[in-house]
Order: sequence, then structure tokens, then C-alpha cells
Amino acid sequence: MRAKTPSESRTIMTDLVLPSETNPLNNLFGGELLARMDRAASISARRHSRRITVTASVNHVAFNRAVPLGSVVTVEASVSRAFKTSMEIFIDVWIEDRFTGERSKANEAIYTFVAVDDTGKPTEVPPLEPETELEKERFAAALRRKQLSLVLAGKMKPSDASELKALFMG
Amino acid sequence: MRAKTPSESRTIMTDLVLPSETNPLNNLFGGELLARMDRAASISARRHSRRITVTASVNHVAFNRAVPLGSVVTVEASVSRAFKTSMEIFIDVWIEDRFTGERSKANEAIYTFVAVDDTGKPTEVPPLEPETELEKERFAAALRRKQLSLVLAGKMKPSDASELKALFMG
Amino acid sequence: MRAKTPSESRTIMTDLVLPSETNPLNNLFGGELLARMDRAASISARRHSRRITVTASVNHVAFNRAVPLGSVVTVEASVSRAFKTSMEIFIDVWIEDRFTGERSKANEAIYTFVAVDDTGKPTEVPPLEPETELEKERFAAALRRKQLSLVLAGKMKPSDASELKALFMG
Amino acid sequence: MRAKTPSESRTIMTDLVLPSETNPLNNLFGGELLARMDRAASISARRHSRRITVTASVNHVAFNRAVPLGSVVTVEASVSRAFKTSMEIFIDVWIEDRFTGERSKANEAIYTFVAVDDTGKPTEVPPLEPETELEKERFAAALRRKQLSLVLAGKMKPSDASELKALFMG
Amino acid sequence: MRAKTPSESRTIMTDLVLPSETNPLNNLFGGELLARMDRAASISARRHSRRITVTASVNHVAFNRAVPLGSVVTVEASVSRAFKTSMEIFIDVWIEDRFTGERSKANEAIYTFVAVDDTGKPTEVPPLEPETELEKERFAAALRRKQLSLVLAGKMKPSDASELKALFMG
Amino acid sequence: MRAKTPSESRTIMTDLVLPSETNPLNNLFGGELLARMDRAASISARRHSRRITVTASVNHVAFNRAVPLGSVVTVEASVSRAFKTSMEIFIDVWIEDRFTGERSKANEAIYTFVAVDDTGKPTEVPPLEPETELEKERFAAALRRKQLSLVLAGKMKPSDASELKALFMG
Repeated sequence: MRAKTPSESRTIMTDLVLPSETNPLNNLFGGELLARMDRAASISARRHSRRITVTASVNHVAFNRAVPLGSVVTVEASVSRAFKTSMEIFIDVWIEDRFTGERSKANEAIYTFVAVDDTGKPTEVPPLEPETELEKERFAAALRRKQLSLVLAGKMKPSDASELKALFMG
Repeated sequence: MRAKTPSESRTIMTDLVLPSETNPLNNLFGGELLARMDRAASISARRHSRRITVTASVNHVAFNRAVPLGSVVTVEASVSRAFKTSMEIFIDVWIEDRFTGERSKANEAIYTFVAVDDTGKPTEVPPLEPETELEKERFAAALRRKQLSLVLAGKMKPSDASELKALFMG
Repeated sequence: MRAKTPSESRTIMTDLVLPSETNPLNNLFGGELLARMDRAASISARRHSRRITVTASVNHVAFNRAVPLGSVVTVEASVSRAFKTSMEIFIDVWIEDRFTGERSKANEAIYTFVAVDDTGKPTEVPPLEPETELEKERFAAALRRKQLSLVLAGKMKPSDASELKALFMG
Repeated sequence: MRAKTPSESRTIMTDLVLPSETNPLNNLFGGELLARMDRAASISARRHSRRITVTASVNHVAFNRAVPLGSVVTVEASVSRAFKTSMEIFIDVWIEDRFTGERSKANEAIYTFVAVDDTGKPTEVPPLEPETELEKERFAAALRRKQLSLVLAGKMKPSDASELKALFMG
Repeated sequence: MRAKTPSESRTIMTDLVLPSETNPLNNLFGGELLARMDRAASISARRHSRRITVTASVNHVAFNRAVPLGSVVTVEASVSRAFKTSMEIFIDVWIEDRFTGERSKANEAIYTFVAVDDTGKPTEVPPLEPETELEKERFAAALRRKQLSLVLAGKMKPSDASELKALFMG
Repeated sequence: MRAKTPSESRTIMTDLVLPSETNPLNNLFGGELLARMDRAASISARRHSRRITVTASVNHVAFNRAVPLGSVVTVEASVSRAFKTSMEIFIDVWIEDRFTGERSKANEAIYTFVAVDDTGKPTEVPPLEPETELEKERFAAALRRKQLSLVLAGKMKPSDASELKALFMG
């Protein structure tokens, strides 16, 4: 399969924060943002693989900034690394100031999707070829995250996770 | 503040999987499940703290089993450890077989919530006192997870994360 | 078929009142609560019968207390009596005070569901065996309600409704 | 206050049955229909009273016919009797055959609404003056239903419910 | 096929404006009103044709009046002219004053629908026979609109659009 | 006010077609697409004006291609011409083939928005400066559309609509 670049799967989902999505402080519910990011990431995974894709896992997501009612929110997703049948998707969330129009980063998240056929069986995906500096950094870090996730799930011995060991012993 | 037990914040949210929540394979969207878990966890955090609570982060969530259209899904959340102004919430997701009624584990997730006052400023919460074996295990692991999250966010040096170092060097 | 107890069908659905569900006084719409109770009751009926179940009727429901935006609402449903192919479901609705956490009763409702096969034809359900005092009371009252419902539908002569006659002539 | 006729509060709500509102048999959820009827009834109550109105109770509702996905459903509500601050609303539900266009009755329901001022305090409503034969019948029956509801709520002694006694002793 | 009158396809959809449908000024989103009008028009087209119908186009729609949160909105649709396989639907939107109950016109819109068979292929519809003065006016204007739409789509030469030429050259 | 280019207001809203948004042929409801386009256009209008914006009108919209359930739909909106207080927004809708990923045009639409202050009063917006060939064409055509809309609304005499007269008399 031909390798693809992150920009081939880049997905931009701009939308308003509606009243039905806000908590008692009039900010977007964390859960609503998680659901939007999941939809954007699934489109990105589909663009990379041209398959049905299903959410396999969500990495650590930090909600650093509240997103107020009426905000314009832009969710940008693209594949950051492809493994055999799975893809890591990196998601950046931006909000923009209503008066100045200035964009600022509200969140970052990493989801993993698996490509499946019509019966739900995992199926192979093309490799990813990062282009920019940022894409290359995220590509490298993806391996570290995969090891960590295998260790936490008890599917890899900590001592075999070479990338992580270096981190904690350095 | 008086310590509280996990059972005081236990929150049970049983509901159906509706057609508007399913993907092309007729299974619950990962994003919808993330949103339900967020609502259950926020109620649990509120029951522990008696405050407005906002999502601070989502730990690694693995989607091990598809949840088909029409399933009965039970999301159970309770506080697994309380820090100064934040609470870790452990969430178990169960589905039950339509014919035998047998319950099986579909997912696990860990969210962190912060208690805030009416202006959104973090405010103190009661300590947690685990009772059962499982609650005690989760309580202990919560510290490890907090260190990991601080390391990943660059707010703690790996060499200071004593619990984690033991894990990788043991 | 083996008899089942009410606790085997007990269904707990805890959730928030969201802004999209409130009327101009910022309280939960009666219709939204009716829909939530219907979903909880249908799960309870399914747990008792292990069949597809459809709403057959709703008994008198009184809305005694307003349920404000942001409340935590707990809907608890369990089968109160089983007839040949139908089940009466008793539903209690609780809200809790945001600051003290005190639970108070907001509503009560009674729904009837019928178990059906895949073609929609009614199909037999197990008998119910009440255990607690409250369950026994509700079990007894269910027969009175069934007679009343048959009389009101013109399917039973008032003079044959022995339980009801006693009530009005006593 | 000037009396009003039922036709002054008649409310017609025609809409489709959408996929997100159907159960596993592809029929409209009972709970969704209850919510639609509640909205139609609340508009009818408002048209009669020109006040904010809140659901006070739902009388017995029987779901006699399934309403399949894609159906055109017409909910017709009008005030059937006005008391001091409350109104009984009678609701007829029709579906129409997709090919012949023939309308048939799917359901009937009776809701009670209370008119309130901006603080939620009950406030007086105009009397109702029925015109047609059907409106007069429903107007008369409304009193019987009110007595029944008071008896069931323990707020009227059965022996004082003259209308009902006649029914069971006749 | 027997001709039908506009009143045979008249569709009335009365409903409230809910909080989840409003913009930052607390008025109904234009897009929500467009969606409601589309549903009402599709029912009207189905009543005329007794077929599955799909939206073909929306004519110019002006939003002259804001529709505030909590309003009662009545959308009235009926077929204004039938062509071979398509129907023009005229839609009037009314809101009513909460206190006086006075109805006023909020919007007008014109949609075109096509009748299709189960495979999506266009299929013939009955002719329309207008009755009232207003219906006759709208019937005549529909031809002008059809010519304009063909000219704008480049499917008719402006010089062949006799009705329109008269308008601009008169 | 400094003039802005169309690319400064370009808004991209990519999302899936969900089951709750489809008609009996399993295609996206016309009304749902109208609502999505309205949200994208309102964000575009806000980005140009940095004001609250409200839908003023929708020009002719043709639905040339069905959009099937599960499709990835991209709505792209940008301001095509600015008048004193209003903006014309041009919207392109694309769908992509699930297997080849090929994008194809599904729809085009033109909405007009007005910028308002917090009391709802129209307020001035910056001029638009088109850059590309396509932007310049759309900019020119916008004047013709404005005249047509004024003529149809009876606010301009056909004989004064110089641009349109040329079209029909040429």
C-alpha cells in the first residue's frame, strides 16, 4: 500500500457551542467535546484507510481551558502514525475570540482507531509518512505512547519497553 | 472535612443504545460512550464534593468490546481517590445479554474532575476512605496515575516519580 | 417459568437535567420526564421477561415537584406485578439537593409493558414474587389498577370489578 | 374572565417519526409520543390561559397501535374542561396510511396543566364552554376523572365522589 | 390521476421554540426553522402524491422577524402547483403573542419536492386545482418561479422565459 | 474599516451523516443540510464582521445529489460580498467516496446574514476584497442577486434593476 501523509487525512470540523451542550457554568461539557473529537478522528482515520474505522482507545486528554457557550470551536484531526491495522490520531482543538478573532489552543487529544471490514474484522492500513517537523515529532512520540499503553494493559513487560525505560532511567 | 467512602458517590446510569448513537456497524459510537461516562462521572464527583465539578482530564480508555444497537448499558462511576481540589473517578461499563441477562464488562475508564465555586475557582474536597479490596487497589493506583500524568505533562521530573520508577526499574 | 423478584428487574437511571430539556421556568419538561421513565421502565420489563417489550399504557402520573435545570435525577423502576403477557412497572423518581445531598421524592408513575416476539406478537412472561412489605403492597394494588383500567376501557363491567366496588361502597 | 371554546385552544402538531425515535421493532417509542403530546398539550393550555403552564398530571394513556418509522403522526390537543387554575387537555393522535392517505386513530390521552405566574404560583384561568356533542361529553367526563384522581391521591373520600359512586353502584 | 386541491395537502405543524434551538440573542436559529419547514413541506408533498418525496430546491426565503425562545410557532404548508413529477410547496410561518394570543406572520418560504419510487426514480404526481383567490395567485406565480429557476440554472434561455421577460420589460 | 478577503472568513465544517438525520431512502434530510449550512455560514459571517450575526435570507438552493447515511460531508462557507450591514455567504457542499476518497460537489447555496449589536440593531461590516477568479465572479454576481431579491420583495422597480434588465433583454 502507498504511504500517505498526515495532510491527506487532515479533518477540520468547525462548529458553534450550542446551549444544549453546556454545563451549569455555561461552558461546553467535557463529554460533548470528547464526542466531537471522536467524530473528527474517525473521519481522519477513514480518510487514511478508506475503511470503516472504530474507536480503539483514547489516550490521556487534559481539559485545560473552558469553552464558553457561543464559542466557535475548531477541531483539527490527522493521523500521526499508522501501525498494522490501527492508526493514532492527533487532535488539536482551537477556540477563537469573538471580537479579535484570535485563535488559541484549548485542548489536545490522542485517539486510536482500528480499520475493520464489513464483518468488523481488523484490516491492514497504509503506512504514514510525516512531512513537517511537528508531524515527525508526533510520529516518534506515538511509538512511546504505544509501548506505554501496552505496559499499562499488561501486554508488554516494562523491561521490554525500551523507549520508556530510557525516559525514567535517563 | 469528613472523609467519604466510594459508595457515597456511586452513580448508576442504565440506559438503552438508541439508533441515533450508532456507527455504520450498528454499534455505539465511541464518542457517545465517552459523553455518557463524563455525565456519570460528573454526578459522582458532585456527590463526593457537593460542588459544581468540571472535567479536568480523561485517562487512557480502551474500547475492548463493541456495544450493539438496542443493548442495555450500565455505567457505574465512583470516586477512587480525592486530592486537594480534584477527584479521580473510576468508571465501569457493563452490557447485558438480551436473552440470558448475563452482565459482562465492556469498558473501564478513569476521569479526573475538579470542584469549583460559582466563579470557576478550584475549591477543596473531602478525602476518600476506601473500604473494599478493589477500592483500596484503585486508591493506591491513583497515585501512580497522577505521577504519570504529571510526568507526561512535564510538571514532574521522571526521577521524582518514585512509584513509576519502581515499575520500570524493578 | 421460574418466578422472579422485583429486585431482579430493578433499573437505576441517574442523569442530569440538561438545558435542552427545560421549560420557560427552567424546570424539566413533564414530557421529558415521561420519556426517561418510559426508557427505564422498558429496561426493567426486559430484565424481567428477557424479551422485546413495548409500552402498553401509562397510569395516572402526578407531577408534584418541579425538577430544576442542573438537578441530578434518579429514576428507579422495577416490575410490580406480572400478568400473562404484560407487566406493571412501578417507577420512583428522586432528586437530590445540590448542597446537602439529601434525596427527596419528586414523582411516582406506573407504566404497563407487553412482552412481544420478533413479529410483535404478545408472549408469556414469568410470574413476579414480591419480597419486601412495599413490594407486596404494590403487588396487591396492581390488581385493583388493572380492574380500573379494564372498566375505564369498557372491557369489564363495573359490577364485576370486585376490588373496586369494595373501595367505593365500603 | 370571558369563557373560551375548545376550538380556541385547538393545537395541531403534525410531524414525521424519525429514526432516532424508534424502538427495536422500528416503531415510535412510547416515551417519545408522551413527550410530543406533552408539548402539544402545553401549547393548548397556554392558548386557553395565556399564561406559562406546567404539566400537573397525565391520566391513563393506552398505546393501542404501533406507530411505524416514517409515519406521519398528527397530535391534536384542546382544552376539555377548565377548573380554577387547572385545565384538562384531551389529546387525539392520528396516523395516516402512506398510500391511501386514510387517517386512523392511534391513541388518546388526557393531561392536566396548571397555569402559573412568573414565580411559579398557580393563577386563575377562564372557564371553558363546550360547543359540539363530543366536546360536551368530554367536558362532563372531566369531572368524573377529577374526582377519581382526587380519590386515588387520597384527597377525597370515595363516599363523597358522587359521580364515581353512581358508576360502580348503578 | 385525479386532481387534488391545496387543502388536501395542507399540513399544520405547531410547536414550541426550545432552548437547544436558539442563537446567542435567544431567537430561533434560521437553520432550525429551515429544517422544520422542510419536514412540514415533505409531509405536504407526500399527502399530495402518496409517494416518498425528496427536497429538490428551496426558493428565496426571507427571515423578516426574529422568533424568540419559548414562542409558539405554526408552520403551515400546502402544495401550490404540481408539475410532472415535482411539486411546489408554499409555506407560511406564524408566531403568536404570548399574552394576547394574536397571530402574526413571521416568514414565508417556497420549497420544491420531487416524488420518487422506492429506487429513488422520479414518478408522476396528480395535478393541482387551486380553489381560493390566494391559491390561484400562488398557482400562477409558481410558473414564473419555475422559469426563473431554470434561467438561473442555465437550463432555459432568458429570451424563452416569456413570463419573466414581461416582468422586466413591461 | 479594513477590507477583508474571503479566505479570512473561510469556514470548514466536516462531519458524518448520522442515522437520526436521514429520510426513508437513508439519505440526509434536505432540512438537516440547510441547518448545517446555516451554522457554517453564521460562523463565516461572524469571522468577517466580529459581531453577532443573524440569518436574513436564503437564496435559491438546489439539492442535486442525495447524500447517503454514513457519508463524510464537508460544508465550506465564505463571505462572497459585503454590503453596508449585510453579508452574502457562498456555501459549497462536498461529499467524498468512501473507497476512493474522491470528492464531488453535492450542493451550492447562498445565504445572507446581517451583523447586529447586543440589542439586535444592524451594525456596519468591513468591505470584502475578492482575490481569486472564482471569488471575483461570485462578488460580481452578488449584486445581481441583491437586485433580484429586492425586485422580488417589491422593494425595487424591475426597470431600475439595470443588471437584471440586461440579462433578460440581451
